[in-house]
Amino acid sequence: MRLVLGIDGGGTNCRAALATMAGVVIGRGAGGPANIMTDLEGTRDSVIEAARNAFSDAGADFAGAAETDAVLGLAGANVADLGDRLTAMLPFRESACESDALIALHGALGEHDGAIAIIGTGSVFMVRHDGQSRAIGGWGFALSDLGSGARLGRELLEESLLAHDGIRTGTGLTRAVLERFDNDPRKVVRFAAGARPRDYGQFAPLVFEHAPVGDPTAERLLSRSVRQIEEALAALGLRDGDRLCLLGGLAKQIAPRLSAPFKAFLAEPLADALGGAVALAVKRYGETAVAR
Amino acid sequence: MRLVLGIDGGGTNCRAALATMAGVVIGRGAGGPANIMTDLEGTRDSVIEAARNAFSDAGADFAGAAETDAVLGLAGANVADLGDRLTAMLPFRESACESDALIALHGALGEHDGAIAIIGTGSVFMVRHDGQSRAIGGWGFALSDLGSGARLGRELLEESLLAHDGIRTGTGLTRAVLERFDNDPRKVVRFAAGARPRDYGQFAPLVFEHAPVGDPTAERLLSRSVRQIEEALAALGLRDGDRLCLLGGLAKQIAPRLSAPFKAFLAEPLADALGGAVALAVKRYGETAVAR
Repeated sequence: MRLVLGIDGGGTNCRAALATMAGVVIGRGAGGPANIMTDLEGTRDSVIEAARNAFSDAGADFAGAAETDAVLGLAGANVADLGDRLTAMLPFRESACESDALIALHGALGEHDGAIAIIGTGSVFMVRHDGQSRAIGGWGFALSDLGSGARLGRELLEESLLAHDGIRTGTGLTRAVLERFDNDPRKVVRFAAGARPRDYGQFAPLVFEHAPVGDPTAERLLSRSVRQIEEALAALGLRDGDRLCLLGGLAKQIAPRLSAPFKAFLAEPLADALGGAVALAVKRYGETAVAR
Repeated sequence: MRLVLGIDGGGTNCRAALATMAGVVIGRGAGGPANIMTDLEGTRDSVIEAARNAFSDAGADFAGAAETDAVLGLAGANVADLGDRLTAMLPFRESACESDALIALHGALGEHDGAIAIIGTGSVFMVRHDGQSRAIGGWGFALSDLGSGARLGRELLEESLLAHDGIRTGTGLTRAVLERFDNDPRKVVRFAAGARPRDYGQFAPLVFEHAPVGDPTAERLLSRSVRQIEEALAALGLRDGDRLCLLGGLAKQIAPRLSAPFKAFLAEPLADALGGAVALAVKRYGETAVAR
């Protein structure tokens, strides 16, 4: 019985799904982190671990992996030849490396045209028309990822220091932030010295808590985030009939704040990124099988 | 003959001036970097090296240092007890550690009331009224230093990526930036991964080159910088008769862009930060001598 593997690799862990050629998942498994850009061998090990667990979950012998085709979605898969180097190291019959955004898009939209906006700790936008996909944004925390939780958190800390110095008017939100640092701006600076995007992102929920009660700082920061997200969405060139799915940790909180022209495109995602990887594998290797 | 030392310590080097109690400088010397926050012993060595060279420059025996009082201006001198710990390690009769901003302010304003804005790679603002000084901003690149060269440079790279993705309209300025990176956004991201504030600051001059010819990106970034600087100036509470000195590498380019109410306060600095340290030493230890 021919099977395919879909694999969704992320910075904290890696998930695999073993499925029939009809796309029915018969086993699932998880593995360690998959950071293709910083650790190629570690990524290979995590992918194999997740796949092995999926075979085991399905009650199948992992020896069958050599007869199984796989589609992997990994951040950084489109950088230089990293994707090719990884697939050459894998024990599957054929493997294809795609970007994490593409499997998320295919999971969310299936065969529909349209776009996704992943708004989590980072942000990235991808559109697909007539089978051609194009990603924008998502260049990372330092210079991009506008509208993301990490950027929102950093801007909140910045506003809180401005409020501490009397440069901007303090609000309940900036006071709540400063209290977390014992009202000592040097502690804020010390936090920032070692902060990674996810550390900044932990402050984003505070903005969403204070916005509904009309906190001016929360409103300003959130308006700016939504404006930046809409600028990116506008650049995607959505067409009549397209679907737009918001994904990521902030999706549910951003969606209701989009303006009407974008809201009109909103649709619930059909499946998650792992489902997208499975569907892409069925599509790719099912067609290959026919072609043979 | 009683003498005083003024010392201006910075991240790249340390300067000392040996002066009479009338404030006449009779010898100057330089030493290595003075990063009190990261290297206390190294800072002590650099300060002593600069002082020794100043004594030598004046044709005086460094043994006289034990009878000489000193005022030091150092970034971070106001953090915890770092200033006290440093002065306890110095061979001078008495030493006082002040912030780098305070000696810059005293150099620029002398005995006048007023304020300084240091706009260089970073930014910081300080006001003095009736002998009481207060600094705002200057909490560093990650969360503060608004209007600084490093922030301006980072925002320019951000705009260039947005232009590359078609999210914002590209202009001559963003095209000039992207060309420096062979029009490859991944090279921009790679640059950012290792960039320190001064690396970002190297892009600030491009903004000032393109603004006079009406480049919309340059105009927008520069307007934002000036607005942020003016917000900080407004929070200083300048009074009639105050002087305002703009200092730092971008001072000459920012000053003409300030709005009229702030321009009215502008004055040329009387002396540099080292001159301020000397003047503070004369003031402090001259008075002490009288009190004895």
